[in-house]
Amino acid sequence: MAQKNKNEAKVSSRPLEIKLPMPERKGGMPLYEALNNRMTQRKFADTPLDEQQLSNLLWCAGGVNREDGKLTSPTARNAQEIDIYVFIDKGVFLYVPKENVLKEILPEDHRIEISERSKMPAEAPVTLLFYANYDKMEGFDETAREFYGATDAGFVSQNVYLYCAANKLSTVVMGAINRDLLNELIPGDGKAILAQPVGYPAK
Amino acid sequence: MAQKNKNEAKVSSRPLEIKLPMPERKGGMPLYEALNNRMTQRKFADTPLDEQQLSNLLWCAGGVNREDGKLTSPTARNAQEIDIYVFIDKGVFLYVPKENVLKEILPEDHRIEISERSKMPAEAPVTLLFYANYDKMEGFDETAREFYGATDAGFVSQNVYLYCAANKLSTVVMGAINRDLLNELIPGDGKAILAQPVGYPAK
Repeated sequence: MAQKNKNEAKVSSRPLEIKLPMPERKGGMPLYEALNNRMTQRKFADTPLDEQQLSNLLWCAGGVNREDGKLTSPTARNAQEIDIYVFIDKGVFLYVPKENVLKEILPEDHRIEISERSKMPAEAPVTLLFYANYDKMEGFDETAREFYGATDAGFVSQNVYLYCAANKLSTVVMGAINRDLLNELIPGDGKAILAQPVGYPAK
Repeated sequence: MAQKNKNEAKVSSRPLEIKLPMPERKGGMPLYEALNNRMTQRKFADTPLDEQQLSNLLWCAGGVNREDGKLTSPTARNAQEIDIYVFIDKGVFLYVPKENVLKEILPEDHRIEISERSKMPAEAPVTLLFYANYDKMEGFDETAREFYGATDAGFVSQNVYLYCAANKLSTVVMGAINRDLLNELIPGDGKAILAQPVGYPAK
């Protein structure tokens, strides 16, 4: 977006980019204990997560863990087609694993639109959307896109569950989402697979 | 199966049941480190896994982690429809999380039949098959069975990846499997979703 004049310099920084702090790649709760604590919790306090938490959460979900650019979650034929969108009060952001950056896609709060049936995505401070980006699945036929889009979102979501279990956060994975609306909202060709609100448990 | 006479007592112990040792539910590699080590490895030594490793692996994949019978992996509407079949040289076994038991389904080695394209399932000492059991998905329409069968197998598979990362084992998730053949092989109504060989890395 072009700058109209120098007084508008701050406005022209849209679309916003949030450079996340480096994720922690050592430590954390022992794996078996995290799996033992893995559960769904549906009540959220509105306390926001800080940027370090967001960075850790997103890196666990689908961050780069190797020098060749491969991720914490597998994808069919290493298509890396699961884009993670971050819905917060400030807007909707795309997580870019290689840059460890959140890129603004929409500047308003769209959490309430994620589900018709449930307020959880809007009650949590952060709701992630796992979106199969079909532009990254060119060699896949329609059946394969549907199938691997779903399996590959599952890998990512389980990592979010374990991050939350390890950090005593609430989370719930949701398949009953406004899929058509979200597919319109998100640019490009693809399919919204699962949403996953994350936050502190409500007291 | 009824015993014909007392001399056949040992034979009548088929179908075989293997009672697994209790899984470890504490300790393990720190979560972030396990995620940092998460990767696909396609070469396997034929060294078998011992029963404690098998118990830990299966509990991580989809064991009971709470008194209400809920699992380490989520499932849509808590259907718990992902049955984990264990293909080893001795046969094909169903993991029964609530009993921590392997129940023999077929007494022969069927690893080679898992894939036409790849020998990996037969090269690894253990290949897991994640199977969406449609008898446990009665309230789901066909689209939902397909969709959640796939997402829910993804959760389980990611746990297997993390168990392997934490224990320096090789693993690879495979979607290109002999699905029709496996659907015939496995009793009941359902769909073979993903297979995942596990073993020590080849030297």
